[in-house]
Order: sequence, then C-alpha cells, then structure tokens
Amino acid sequence: MEKPLILVTNDDGITAPGIRALIKVMNKLGTVCVVAPDSPQSGMGHAITVNDTLYCDAVVVDKDAPQKEYRCSGTPVDCVKLAVNEILGRKPDLCVSGINHGSNSSINVLYSGTMSAAVEAGTQGIPSIGFSLLDYSLEADFEPVLEHVEILAKQCLEHGLPTGVVLNVNFPKVSKEGIKGIKVCRQADAHWVERFDKRVNPLGREYYWLSGDFVNNDKGEDTDEWALANDYISVVPVQFDMTAYQALNQLNNWNFSQ
Amino acid sequence: MEKPLILVTNDDGITAPGIRALIKVMNKLGTVCVVAPDSPQSGMGHAITVNDTLYCDAVVVDKDAPQKEYRCSGTPVDCVKLAVNEILGRKPDLCVSGINHGSNSSINVLYSGTMSAAVEAGTQGIPSIGFSLLDYSLEADFEPVLEHVEILAKQCLEHGLPTGVVLNVNFPKVSKEGIKGIKVCRQADAHWVERFDKRVNPLGREYYWLSGDFVNNDKGEDTDEWALANDYISVVPVQFDMTAYQALNQLNNWNFSQ
Repeated sequence: MEKPLILVTNDDGITAPGIRALIKVMNKLGTVCVVAPDSPQSGMGHAITVNDTLYCDAVVVDKDAPQKEYRCSGTPVDCVKLAVNEILGRKPDLCVSGINHGSNSSINVLYSGTMSAAVEAGTQGIPSIGFSLLDYSLEADFEPVLEHVEILAKQCLEHGLPTGVVLNVNFPKVSKEGIKGIKVCRQADAHWVERFDKRVNPLGREYYWLSGDFVNNDKGEDTDEWALANDYISVVPVQFDMTAYQALNQLNNWNFSQ
Repeated sequence: MEKPLILVTNDDGITAPGIRALIKVMNKLGTVCVVAPDSPQSGMGHAITVNDTLYCDAVVVDKDAPQKEYRCSGTPVDCVKLAVNEILGRKPDLCVSGINHGSNSSINVLYSGTMSAAVEAGTQGIPSIGFSLLDYSLEADFEPVLEHVEILAKQCLEHGLPTGVVLNVNFPKVSKEGIKGIKVCRQADAHWVERFDKRVNPLGREYYWLSGDFVNNDKGEDTDEWALANDYISVVPVQFDMTAYQALNQLNNWNFSQ
C-alpha cells in the first residue's frame, strides 16, 4: 500500500523546535511535505495574504531527513493553500499543524495560526489536526507528548474525521508519566481580558503592547480547560460552520420592516 | 434615557466609504466612537498583533460630525480590544463593523477582518453586527442598504442578542427597490478553490499572488448564498464556540491507548 501523504505546517516558523519534533513523528507514518512560515506567525488567526506577494522556496533544514520542505513568506493559512494547490499536486491524506509553543485551548482557537492552518485544510476536505503544548518556551520539551501525537495521527489516518470537523489537541506541561490520558472535550467558555501596556517611543509618540489575562468562568468538567488543568490531553472537535442554529428562531421574531 | 454607546470599526480602513456610511447611520441611534485600522486589513481574519507595537491616535475625519475617531495601526480585532479596554472606558452597548466592500457570506466569515471584529466584540459580551455589501468597488453605492442597517442595529439595541452569538449581515448589490427583504439564514457549505498566479520579480525570484474561485455546492434554500443570489439580505447568527458537539461521541470510540 502506498504510504499516506502528510502535510506539516505551523505558526511558529519552519525552524521552531515544535515543528521539527512533529516532522520526526510524521516520518514514521507517511511521506512528509513541510510547507511552513519563514518567520513566527503567532496570533495570525485565519489571516490570508491578499494585498501582497507570496514567496515559497524549497529549503533543506535537516540534511539527512527524508521530507521535502518549503518556507513561505505568508501566514499559516497561505501555507496550506500553497501546499495543496501548487506544491503537492494532490490533496494530502492528513494535515498536521504545530506542535505549537503555547496553548490553543478554549477561545484561543480563534486567534491561533496553528489551528487556522488545520481549519483551512479542513475546509478543503483534508483530515486535519492542530497540536499545541502548554509551554511557550522555545526550549519546551516535546518528548513526553510524541507518542500521543503518533497515536492521534494514526487514528485520524485510519478513521478519517467527520465532514466539516478538525481536531484541536492540547497537551499539558507535565512529565511523560504525569499525563493521565486523553479526553474528548468541548471548548471551554473562556475569554481574554486585555491589559494594554502604554509606552512612549524615542520620538515622544505613545504606543501600546497588547497583553492580557485569560479568564475561565466555565466550571464544566467536560471542557478542554478542565482536562488540561487535571493533566489530561484535550481533544476538541472543531467545526467551521459557525452558524448558531439555536438562534435562528429567535431572530425570526425580530421586526425587520420598521 | 442616556443614548447608547456605539463602537464602529471595519477592515477596509477608517477612510473607506463603507465605514463613513455606517457612521452616519449610527449617529442617528447613539453616541458613536470609531476605532478603525489606519490602512486596509482585508483578509486578516482574527489576527492580533502580539509581536509588534500598536499605535492608536485620535483623528478628525469629518470636521463637523459628532463622533470621536481613532485610527489604529493594528488589525480589526486589535481595534476592538483597544477600544473596549483603553478608549471607551466601558463596554459599548453595540459594536458594528463595516460596511465591508465585498461579500463576507458563507466560509468567508473565517477570513473576514470585518466579521472577526464583530466576533471579538461578541467574545467580550457586546451585541455585535458585521455588515457587508456584495460590491468590492471603492465607489460602491451604500445608499440602498442604509435603512436596513438602521433597522437591524435598532433591533439589536432593543432585543440584544443571544449569549455567544453575533450577526453576519450581507447585502445584495441591487437597487433600493430591488431588495426583496431580510432572510435569517445558515452559513452555506461553500469553499474556495485557489489559483496561484506565479510570476517572476525583477531579480529573477519566483513569487505568487493568491487568487481563487468561490465554489458553492450547497443547494439549500435556507443559506446565505441562496438569499443573496435571490436579492434578499442575509442575516446569519454566528457563534464562536467552535465545538462540533455532534462529533464528540464518534471520537470517544477512537482507540487512544495503542
């Protein structure tokens, strides 16, 4: 049987330790092609490059490794579009994104370039998983989670995913032995409360740094936040039909003809 | 009774005709504050500025108009965060985004800076509407849709919106008389098929322009695409809990312990 074709991307950039670890695992499962940003793209969400040009060049990062690699000047979503339509010549059998340096649980799914790459692949009918580790450090240790990455990718290759669904997988920052297992969860109802750090530049002009606090008021034990706080791996099925079906009736009671 | 406080933003930039038209309508309904990008931010999705500084300066665009205005160097989502946390001093009673020059129907909700601004306000508990006109031209005529913008904003101020829901409103490009009415819809199951225009720069390096075709295979007459194609205004309730609840059971049947 032909080996599956696996597209690997991320939002931390093609040289980030997280994607290098992910590539090594995927080389065990199939033929790997990497198309990833040439620079960090954290917080890019589902951005695409519409008013600028895109560069995408073949590059060798690991001299003796089997995968083909391309570095792209665009966003994570641009990487997936370029990969599928220009580089691979066919739809891959799986797209994996990450492993992100830092959490993409709960509402962070909206801001995450890692997850938006996975969602983009999903919109094109490709089974797709975004992986994130709850450690923002560039020196984060991915070793404890690699066997779980492999299991999840294998299961996805074997079973596929329901139409219109991709997976958001987050790993707690604990030792290999500390991981209690995998929980299929819903997205916790949490949000960010911003704090802007206001400063003055050398020319006397005020500017801001975006900062903030993550606030989770959702006490449910079926959420990704609960799972991660209790040392479980969280797996949230994510859909990109954003229709709030439960709200259709209520809106039909509005008076549109004033 | 105190007038409602209305935050206005967009993704085409603070001087775009679409936002100028929207501001005029909102001045009839409340106290308006504009916080919008200083340059076009189309296709920015839910991007936020995490690795760079943000400028946000008071500016006068309409000399004799009552609204306060601020132009921001960041994305539409940055604008909402800055407005709520730094500029307004309290949550506005309504956030409106647009009127976008071009469609944000169906899957475009993912890529749209206009809609991401509305979604961001929604995550902060603010009733919020994104408005878009199916005309990409900078000379687009917004006049035919302004009375409907007013009706929808009024209804939203009066009824509020269900928790976790914002509205995605798209207007067909037809005359005032040609608009058949308002339809509450679901997001059509459509997607983009990319075409990359490959060129060579003056230094001999290959680059791409992202382009593509919108493909709608969804024949449902309850979708936004159907409504717009039949000269109705489409109103889609959009949620930001992206959990695919219908997939939870299926995933629990996976074998996570290989």
